[in-house]
Formats: sequence, structure tokens, C-alpha cells
Amino acid sequence: MTASDVIFQTPVASCSKVCCLALNYRSHAEESSLDVPPVPVLFFKPPSALIGHGAPVRPPRRTRHVEHEVELAVVIGRRCRDVPEEDWADVVAGYTIVNDMTARDLQLESMRRQEPWDHSKAFDTFAPLGPFLVTPDEVPDPHALSMTLTVDGEVRQRAHTGDMVHPIPKLIADLTDGMTLLPGDVIATGTTAGIAPVRDGDVMHAHIDGLGTLVSPVQWAN
Amino acid sequence: MTASDVIFQTPVASCSKVCCLALNYRSHAEESSLDVPPVPVLFFKPPSALIGHGAPVRPPRRTRHVEHEVELAVVIGRRCRDVPEEDWADVVAGYTIVNDMTARDLQLESMRRQEPWDHSKAFDTFAPLGPFLVTPDEVPDPHALSMTLTVDGEVRQRAHTGDMVHPIPKLIADLTDGMTLLPGDVIATGTTAGIAPVRDGDVMHAHIDGLGTLVSPVQWAN
Repeated sequence: MTASDVIFQTPVASCSKVCCLALNYRSHAEESSLDVPPVPVLFFKPPSALIGHGAPVRPPRRTRHVEHEVELAVVIGRRCRDVPEEDWADVVAGYTIVNDMTARDLQLESMRRQEPWDHSKAFDTFAPLGPFLVTPDEVPDPHALSMTLTVDGEVRQRAHTGDMVHPIPKLIADLTDGMTLLPGDVIATGTTAGIAPVRDGDVMHAHIDGLGTLVSPVQWAN
Repeated sequence: MTASDVIFQTPVASCSKVCCLALNYRSHAEESSLDVPPVPVLFFKPPSALIGHGAPVRPPRRTRHVEHEVELAVVIGRRCRDVPEEDWADVVAGYTIVNDMTARDLQLESMRRQEPWDHSKAFDTFAPLGPFLVTPDEVPDPHALSMTLTVDGEVRQRAHTGDMVHPIPKLIADLTDGMTLLPGDVIATGTTAGIAPVRDGDVMHAHIDGLGTLVSPVQWAN
């Protein structure tokens, strides 16, 4: 048996919600011609979108334009609410990588109509997560990590987690202000500049220093 | 033991996502000065927002303006994807009532900034659901139901499920086009005109013919 024989599941056994942060890197806000938000901006992806390392992203036929968004994922370790910023580390089980796949054509059409665009990010396989859950003792500073997203060897996104607009303690304090987080819940901390479309047969490598590389081939249904 | 001794849980034992439809009644779109959407518009509430019949809605301190939105809830009975409209009834476990509580001040601020407003609907206790799961054999036509939302006896919302812009078969076909629904998942089919703020001590009665009355007292934290 070799590593290639292993089928990776998602590194969370159960997950009640994937909390995603919009516009949490200045460079991505700028490329989107949007303001950096003064407070964290939350939207949800459903747990049914999660897939593990190596599993294919399969866009449904209703979209023709799908883009990658590499992000640092924080995995919650215990039920919590109203967590003060200084206690943020107590509720973190570990870190991993998430690729917030987005049907950009559907998202932009919703934005044009000033309607919610959750649907554009909610399809099955649109939340690759992994490859591993890396525990906090292995990650001395989650705000000191470099990340890249490459497609067939070409670097598309390159970022540093120190450039988050709202860092992790602020995110956890804000999200738990009125909302309970549960073990296995995921916080996708936002993406950076360089989002770009994928084609059938592309292979995405989402890499974060110390967390490994999340590989996701793209398979279009048509 | 009397009925008042019973503590009602939510009528879904497990739930992976609450799929909510925006602007699915013409009257609500008109009162919001928004167009009726040509396709269903989806957003999510997290399962952590669910509470049962009789449990209090407790807005967090970060909002000062919270409104009710009574809706028919469709509960999914089996894992399904790509369900044709004509097969919609096969995947329905039953019906109940949901009150899509909304921090309107936060939602309008997000809309003004053209940002997602999921957060305004995601707080704990912001999704009262119940009182019962009523099976389809007891609901001959889910598009022939009258519903009301009253606050301390005053009728605030009055609607008929036949006035949905996109009826249930269309909603199920659209939601499962690319996204898996799981047993216990909830579809909140949209609200109607008459949304209005609640105050501390108010008691909301959300009623739908044949489905009972979902009672939710309001308790402000401050």
C-alpha cells in the first residue's frame, strides 16, 4: 500500500456549518472593486459541499465559470458562544486548508440583482477541505503562514495569513457573539487576490506552509 | 401532566442545513421594493439557530431591531439530488412552520454595503421551528394553506401558500440541481408582507392551517 492508495476523507467527522468570511484580504477586495469591510462579513456554505483531499470538484451544468479561492481553515474544537478575543485559542481544534469554489457567473448575476449569492458557493464538491487537521501545537502562529494556489504548476494565488483584515481572534469573538459554534464547524478565513477560472482536467494544488497541500482535480460534467 | 408541561424540541432530530428562499412571495418583494426573482433565491441559516415550539427568541445585544417572518417549512425525508419536479413529493418527510427571525438593522446595513447578510439571520434562537412535523398524508395540498403571524393577538402577516412565486416542486428541483439534500434538512419557502419588529415580552403566534401554531416569546437580553 502506498500513499496514492489512501482515500482522504474530510478532516472533520461532523460539521454543522462552514462559516466563510468575505473580503478578509485587502488584495481580494481591491480586485473585486469592493471596500474592505469594517466588521467581519459572514456567509455560509453547507456541509454537503465538503470533500476531502484528492476528490474531484464537479461543477453542475448550471454554471459555466467556476473559480478557486484558497483559504486558511480554522476548525472548532468545542461548543462555544460569546468567546472573548483573548480566549480564542481555547476553542480551536486545529487548522487545515479550504478551497472556497465559486460559480462566479451565478455569483455576479446575483450581485447584479442585489440578491444573496450563497447558491453560487453551495454546490456539492465546492468545499475541498484538507488534507489533514493540524493541531495548534504544530502551528505556532496561524497569522505567519504563506499560502499558494497553483493550477497545473502555474501560481494563481499567493498570500500571507498575516494580511487578514480581521485576524482569527476577532473572527471567533465576532462569530460567537450571538451564535454557537460546535466541534467540527469550520471558519474559512477569506481569500486573497488571484482568483481565476478552472477548466475540465485542471488540477488545483492549495498549499499552506505547515498544513500540507490540498489537491483537487476538476471534472466538468459536460 | 398537561400540555403546558411538555417541552417541545425542534421536529427534526438532525439537520445539516436550513435552505431559505428570499422574495418568494410577491407581496413581500413589493414591501421591500425589490423585484420578484425569475429563479429561486437561496440563502442559508445554520442549524444552531433552530429552537422548538415555546422556546424564547433571544436577540443578541448587537441588534436593536428584530423582525418576524412566518413561512411554510418543508422537511426533507431522504438523501436526494437532481430531483425532477414531478418527483418532488418522494423526498418530502413532512411540513411544519418556521419563523425566519431577522435582525433587520444588520441586514439593511449589509445591503447598503452590498455585502452578504447571512449574519443577520444566523443568531441562536433565530429559527423557531414546529410545533410538529405533519406528514404529507395529513396535508393534501401544501399550496392551499392559509397562514398568519400574530403578536399578542394583532395579525401582522396573513398569506396563502398558493401565492408562492416558485412553488415547492420548482424549489426542490432547483435546490437539488447540484446540491444534495439530507434527511432533516429544512426548506423555508419564503415569507409574505407584514414583517414587523418585535419587543421584549412580545409573544409571536405563527399559525398555518393544519400544521398548528408555533408560539415563540421574545426575550431581549437587555
